[in-house]
Amino acid sequence: MINTEIATLTDLLEAGQYGALQRLMNDSFVNDVAEFIEDLEPEQAAVCFKLLHKDMAADVFAKMEGDVRTHLIEALTDREVQNLIEELFLDDAVDLVEELPANVIPRVLRAAKPDTRARLNHFLNYKEDSAGSVMTPEFMRLKKQWTVGFAIDRIRLAVEDVASILTSFVTDESRILEGIVTIQDLLAAKDEQLVGEIMETHYNSVEVHEDQERVVQLFRDHDLVNLPVVDHEGRLVGLITFDDVMDVSEAEVTEDFERMALVTTTTDKPYLKTSVWEHARSRGAWLMILMISGMINGLILGRFENAFLAVPMLVTFIPMLTDTGGNAGSQSSTMIIRGMAVGEIGFRDFWSVIWKELRISWLVGFAMALVNFARIYFFSDHNWLGGLAVSFALIAIVTLSKIVGGALPLLAKKIGMDPAIMAAPMITTIVDALGLIIYFTVASALLGI
Amino acid sequence: MINTEIATLTDLLEAGQYGALQRLMNDSFVNDVAEFIEDLEPEQAAVCFKLLHKDMAADVFAKMEGDVRTHLIEALTDREVQNLIEELFLDDAVDLVEELPANVIPRVLRAAKPDTRARLNHFLNYKEDSAGSVMTPEFMRLKKQWTVGFAIDRIRLAVEDVASILTSFVTDESRILEGIVTIQDLLAAKDEQLVGEIMETHYNSVEVHEDQERVVQLFRDHDLVNLPVVDHEGRLVGLITFDDVMDVSEAEVTEDFERMALVTTTTDKPYLKTSVWEHARSRGAWLMILMISGMINGLILGRFENAFLAVPMLVTFIPMLTDTGGNAGSQSSTMIIRGMAVGEIGFRDFWSVIWKELRISWLVGFAMALVNFARIYFFSDHNWLGGLAVSFALIAIVTLSKIVGGALPLLAKKIGMDPAIMAAPMITTIVDALGLIIYFTVASALLGI
Repeated sequence: MINTEIATLTDLLEAGQYGALQRLMNDSFVNDVAEFIEDLEPEQAAVCFKLLHKDMAADVFAKMEGDVRTHLIEALTDREVQNLIEELFLDDAVDLVEELPANVIPRVLRAAKPDTRARLNHFLNYKEDSAGSVMTPEFMRLKKQWTVGFAIDRIRLAVEDVASILTSFVTDESRILEGIVTIQDLLAAKDEQLVGEIMETHYNSVEVHEDQERVVQLFRDHDLVNLPVVDHEGRLVGLITFDDVMDVSEAEVTEDFERMALVTTTTDKPYLKTSVWEHARSRGAWLMILMISGMINGLILGRFENAFLAVPMLVTFIPMLTDTGGNAGSQSSTMIIRGMAVGEIGFRDFWSVIWKELRISWLVGFAMALVNFARIYFFSDHNWLGGLAVSFALIAIVTLSKIVGGALPLLAKKIGMDPAIMAAPMITTIVDALGLIIYFTVASALLGI
Repeated sequence: MINTEIATLTDLLEAGQYGALQRLMNDSFVNDVAEFIEDLEPEQAAVCFKLLHKDMAADVFAKMEGDVRTHLIEALTDREVQNLIEELFLDDAVDLVEELPANVIPRVLRAAKPDTRARLNHFLNYKEDSAGSVMTPEFMRLKKQWTVGFAIDRIRLAVEDVASILTSFVTDESRILEGIVTIQDLLAAKDEQLVGEIMETHYNSVEVHEDQERVVQLFRDHDLVNLPVVDHEGRLVGLITFDDVMDVSEAEVTEDFERMALVTTTTDKPYLKTSVWEHARSRGAWLMILMISGMINGLILGRFENAFLAVPMLVTFIPMLTDTGGNAGSQSSTMIIRGMAVGEIGFRDFWSVIWKELRISWLVGFAMALVNFARIYFFSDHNWLGGLAVSFALIAIVTLSKIVGGALPLLAKKIGMDPAIMAAPMITTIVDALGLIIYFTVASALLGI
């Protein structure tokens, strides 16, 4: 369905039917129009963008990506830039300015009206990833002594100017937040009741400098639509709406995936729009580090040269043992990392995790060792000592991997690192070295090498 | 903050101050109370649950987990079960019945009022993971010919009975959906305007049998708060609210993480509440499969026994090469899997992905090969042939891994499998075998073994 719409827009553009194109674009979903314009050549993109109505233009603009936005800004007149900035909600305008190349920013700030400019500058000072950086100041304020009927009238007048009317905020004279009122509660109440009677005084809020992860967690835990942001004295300074949080939350999940694969991202561009060079840089660093630290395994193996020259069969089990170690560890670390991300597991659970992983390892390790022993015994001339050595090493490696996989993400968090970094590749590298030592030590002892 | 609240509740319970406990619980966040009750012994949980007001009880119940819910249902009288079922929104009641043990279900259905029971039975027939299974039938219907003022009055009367008033639905006599009206649009309009004039006729909807993944995607792409569900004739049958989608979306991300770590989950219980036995089962199966298929690497290595007996140093590079292959492949597959999950990459991009991965491999592989060659050359007696063999194999393995990592998730999707399964562990196992063959073939040729 979406593709048909974009295809139709493309057809109209190619046929030069600008009138029909304009009508259809202004009537389409914001998301589809943004995708359509993004995929055009810069010049055509500017032509199409200028066909949009003022408010549609702002919505579409807020949905597009960095590069395209920069091109568009450059193609707009100062007047058009001003209209755009004024029409955007402040948080989107702040996002825009933050990502523009340094040489374009002054022009945008100049084009903004003086008070918008002042507010932009103010917001630009909030730390990236803080609650302040995702909030917007266009919220609905009510007073305790207003009647519900009056409050509804005021909301109806303000609908177009605030970022959300789904929650209104009750503040005192000095802007201290006293309570919140949802539109449901307001509509459910009688006209003559007072806002102060129906407001909820037990509500969630965040302080402006708190991390946006905390924001995402509050939205998720309490199914919020809006969240008030206050300064350190409890004065209401902004509002975070759920659609902004959806974006933040999705970006954080993607970041977790990337960190787990040890990809150091420099951009939040989609895969296909990131250049080969950028991809290579974001992946190469960690591959190189792991390769170099993996060389330690070579040194370890070198020390056991006599063992595998005496019993060459030992070599053939190396990949199976190291892979199993990596896989077992990555299962544990993935589950712990995800559990921590959704707030189910914390450092307080450290010993429960270790104890659980220990018991899981024994169950899984023993079952695997049994299968493995049977295979070696029956298919390698009843070599039961060899089978015993490999099987024993297997149990030890599974146990070690699961303990390391369970513990490292928790320890990483404890010392202020992102737990996601302690995923499969890291676990594999660490566990391999220990696994090889265990394997050859056990084998040498049992086989009397 | 959350923990303080739960701690206070625990203190009150232990002190036997039920009056204070009741007041505080009914005044706390739903989420905190649910967590508090979940962690109690079954008997105490039932006592505390019965202290909740009717509507709070329903909200808390909807937030709790399966086991606890079953215990509670068993501790409630038929009358109390009826109150609970009637107070729950239908989608939550359906969820409850779906997860109850078979022997408890009849009692719950008997306790429900006849028309609730009929609707429950109807909803229980929707396929799990379909739009029908997450929707609820308590939506707000408006008529085109109503004035905005009248519509607002009607909404105010219905607030308590519908699942959301944030979007209302305009239907004709035969329930065919004609348009939607958001509460914002309604409040922004003049009282005397007609609903038919301000309704949006260009809106998103899903058919009742569509997969819930599509639902999540629509919410995400269009920042929706509510989504109408229609049957195959376009008649409105239900409403999906964003908080239900948040849950679905989070569960899908967790599922992706687990599949990527090759954990076959049987429950959606949190890590700490899953028994050791369940953990072992959900992880053991894949570890065993990968171990057995990893044995093929042993056979491959066995065929090259002469090579590594002639040049034992070759063995010491095996872990570094296989680990690098696994890591390089998992970077690619993770990015492709995530890109597919958020809808950025599809099978149509197959060749772009391959071509991109190919170029990335060359850049990354060449840089790594260089470092590796230098190390072998300078630290292993200027063994430049050995260095060349390992470096060449390194480039080949990185290239192979990235191609396999990029292609497999897309191919999996194409044949109807979950792409997430083609993550690190699977890639490692597949790439290892090929990598070892490349390595020993190259080495044998270059070193003339």
